[in-house]
Amino acid sequence: MNICGKNYVAGRRSAEGRTIIHSYDASTGERLPYDFFQATPDEVDAAAVAAAAAYPRYRALPAGRRAEFLDAVADELDALDAEFVALVVRETALPTARIQGERGRTSGQMRLFANVLRRGDFYGARIDTALPERQPLPRVDLRQVRLGVGPVAVFGASNFPLAFSTAGGDTAAALAAGCPVVFKAHSGHMATAEYVADAIIRAAEKTGMPVGVFNMIYGAGVGEALVKHPAIQAVGFTGSLRGGRALCDMAAARAQPIPVFAEMSSINPVLVLPEALKQRGEQVAGELAGSVVMGCGQFCTNPGLVIGIRSAPFSQFLDSLSARMADQVPQTMLNAGTLKSYAKGLAALHAHPGVKHLAGQNQEGSQARPQLFQADVSLLLNGDELLQEEVFGPTTVVIEVADKAELIEALHGLHGQLTATLIAEPADLAAFADLVPVLEQKAGRLLLNGYPTGVEVCDAMVHGGPYPATSDARGTSVGSLAIDRFLRPVCYQNYPDALLPDALKNANPLGIVRLLNGSSSREPV
Amino acid sequence: MNICGKNYVAGRRSAEGRTIIHSYDASTGERLPYDFFQATPDEVDAAAVAAAAAYPRYRALPAGRRAEFLDAVADELDALDAEFVALVVRETALPTARIQGERGRTSGQMRLFANVLRRGDFYGARIDTALPERQPLPRVDLRQVRLGVGPVAVFGASNFPLAFSTAGGDTAAALAAGCPVVFKAHSGHMATAEYVADAIIRAAEKTGMPVGVFNMIYGAGVGEALVKHPAIQAVGFTGSLRGGRALCDMAAARAQPIPVFAEMSSINPVLVLPEALKQRGEQVAGELAGSVVMGCGQFCTNPGLVIGIRSAPFSQFLDSLSARMADQVPQTMLNAGTLKSYAKGLAALHAHPGVKHLAGQNQEGSQARPQLFQADVSLLLNGDELLQEEVFGPTTVVIEVADKAELIEALHGLHGQLTATLIAEPADLAAFADLVPVLEQKAGRLLLNGYPTGVEVCDAMVHGGPYPATSDARGTSVGSLAIDRFLRPVCYQNYPDALLPDALKNANPLGIVRLLNGSSSREPV
Repeated sequence: MNICGKNYVAGRRSAEGRTIIHSYDASTGERLPYDFFQATPDEVDAAAVAAAAAYPRYRALPAGRRAEFLDAVADELDALDAEFVALVVRETALPTARIQGERGRTSGQMRLFANVLRRGDFYGARIDTALPERQPLPRVDLRQVRLGVGPVAVFGASNFPLAFSTAGGDTAAALAAGCPVVFKAHSGHMATAEYVADAIIRAAEKTGMPVGVFNMIYGAGVGEALVKHPAIQAVGFTGSLRGGRALCDMAAARAQPIPVFAEMSSINPVLVLPEALKQRGEQVAGELAGSVVMGCGQFCTNPGLVIGIRSAPFSQFLDSLSARMADQVPQTMLNAGTLKSYAKGLAALHAHPGVKHLAGQNQEGSQARPQLFQADVSLLLNGDELLQEEVFGPTTVVIEVADKAELIEALHGLHGQLTATLIAEPADLAAFADLVPVLEQKAGRLLLNGYPTGVEVCDAMVHGGPYPATSDARGTSVGSLAIDRFLRPVCYQNYPDALLPDALKNANPLGIVRLLNGSSSREPV
Repeated sequence: MNICGKNYVAGRRSAEGRTIIHSYDASTGERLPYDFFQATPDEVDAAAVAAAAAYPRYRALPAGRRAEFLDAVADELDALDAEFVALVVRETALPTARIQGERGRTSGQMRLFANVLRRGDFYGARIDTALPERQPLPRVDLRQVRLGVGPVAVFGASNFPLAFSTAGGDTAAALAAGCPVVFKAHSGHMATAEYVADAIIRAAEKTGMPVGVFNMIYGAGVGEALVKHPAIQAVGFTGSLRGGRALCDMAAARAQPIPVFAEMSSINPVLVLPEALKQRGEQVAGELAGSVVMGCGQFCTNPGLVIGIRSAPFSQFLDSLSARMADQVPQTMLNAGTLKSYAKGLAALHAHPGVKHLAGQNQEGSQARPQLFQADVSLLLNGDELLQEEVFGPTTVVIEVADKAELIEALHGLHGQLTATLIAEPADLAAFADLVPVLEQKAGRLLLNGYPTGVEVCDAMVHGGPYPATSDARGTSVGSLAIDRFLRPVCYQNYPDALLPDALKNANPLGIVRLLNGSSSREPV
């Protein structure tokens, strides 16, 4: 594999700039022997223009052709060799098995969207046929279908170098929707990004996609120019609250504002209810500790807040959780910046008078040390900002509440979340059923007796939630519904069959389900 | 009818403020004998808080109960008497028959959403059942449904005092979605707003809706406080580009940004193609003139731009259109402000060296005088801002292009539109089929051989489009899809049947269509 470090612009490699940036071995800090060329303003422009030029041809392709492209990307990803996996491991310090699994998830995601394209519900096809005899006025023939909004800028995450990055969920959803992509390579895994971009380009060439359907730029600060580029029509982002919000603000201030789907900060509350504590507090403590430190806690859905009601079993559970957290070994984080942020987050917790440190070795050295804190419930009740933003890494904060009323009050004090979890026995569910509507208001996904760190890629998944979990609670960045973010409806009034998109033609040549005069149907008109 | 002019807050009438505002007879300018109490900051807060308090109970109601409410609103609207119609006519100068028709449209809109609630596709129900045997990892049970985002602020339009106002499309869509509403009464028809708010409140009481499900505030400047209120979770707006953009900017700058669905400015291009001109240019000129002056041109979808290819038939058509526009009589506008804006818009057209006045009497007096202008195509090709924002009133601008290539180039110069219309014969469609993809990029609704001023309320309608037609091209403010703007998805992982919403229960008690393991189905799980 030859890594040349040039930007991907309109199907060519481009290196007009003089700023060279580097990728690092996440475990050793050693600089990897590749030069990456930061994109110049002209190159950013050229990438966006290439995406815009590809858009009319790409979105006009039959959905089945785009599905072939996504399937080909999946095949290319699956075919990447051990050298590739080793490189990803090197850039991220994530274990080999995890990267192999994540690769499978990433190609599976591509295939899921290919399937969505073949299934056809993404079209949102609706037909209201003419009613020439209607009184007082006739109704004309009206038909609606959804099409891709235009070129999409995607910013990947550091913590999923494959599944939330170059060929990740946002890229897959945008490409599925008929939107060419300009991807901003993550600085934490630029060599990985190059491998994956090459795989996408190979797939695009094999399946005859228009040049410019996928572009990738390297560099710090190039994201701002990308989001402000008039050709870009939507943005997908996974990362920090600060970074996501900055993009949202830029996008909102454009002459033409555009939507930003940013997945940002979530502390993912886990509520351990009394009967569950009584029956299996010890087991829950073990599972929870495992979930907190899994992947060095580097998940958007890492459980950052554990809430229970004051009681002897809860105290026992706390002791047990403390003991288990104290046993956890240090782990290498994704990169030096992540470790620095983790240390900073821990320092803020240590410094707060309402927060007590329960377990964990003093954070120092080159690895992240798992930690357990306890915060006074007043932090939630009084809207203290400290607990609201996630500390990205293997740490969690426990809160003890007096009773159910205080529990509900504390939940109301939470900002928006990706997930909210109940650890509960049937008796708990009977006694605490009124928590569910509160959790529905706070989170995109509600779990029972599971841990939020696994995010299934399927039709029913919601990886989203109220701000600041995401910038727009109406979207999800995982699962097939993610395509909706990049589609907009168009209505055809009185158009002849020949000029209508296939999804709306009388004969229903695609055989899809449509809303036909108010009823769901596969029938022709 | 007793009009007391107090704000509607949590089911009570409130008049804490000292600023009194008035409504006017649109035809005479006479002040109507009602005092309206501008809402104080405390009242704005109380209205938003009331909506937030109603939200948990209201959104938890079965959709069928919300449908009863919407049906009851429709019945109350239909039952409003001749005195009401006369009052609306007085406040807006719109003809009696138009108001009667618009009332029917408004109640019909409520009933459409009631039907959507009973039909159940708005739930977007998706179920992926557990796969305990799956390798390498089992899949848990995951189910997705959509629920209302929370309290919605709605700003009505002056030009549809019923269909886009107090009980208009945005209110109906939000209430259908399970979102309580705080409506900012339009200053142009505050007495009308009071009649309609009373009808909504009567319906809410009759059908046992929670107090605070609908609130209404009067006054200038109260909108800003409303949009910035933390309880408000989304905004619906119909009005000017300047007003809509200001709300978008405020909403984006909140600590928690919220989505704004603003329907703003559209010039609704009408393309008259050669064969149609040859066969029926005279007829098209008549129809187009009728569409331009209908309702004094006070429609979002008023055709503000007519484009044709230079030719003898087009010149003849222009002569004919000029003659017909010269014949049109002055009409009274909605209010003095609208007339002033109209005069200002005309003055800007007169002042531009690239624009020629073709027909219409000098704009003066208390009524709007229909006008026809011709602009040089260079205004579109060079991105001149003058043509891009609508002149609200009975005027239109013609542009002559050299040929099809220039036509396409000119279309690319247009900003986003609500509608784009082709006047075409079959031979035109064969020769100009490649216009359609360009129009798809520019507009929310594409019409053939019709005029955009009629907007059917149905499932397939899109009354939306790229900026600045709306602030978010993914929405529509007319038709049943409008409900989508106020819904967000929530996923339940491993939840027992008893705790799931009815839409997701195994037995499918609502009998709705669901995406069950990737297939559209009404089957139980």
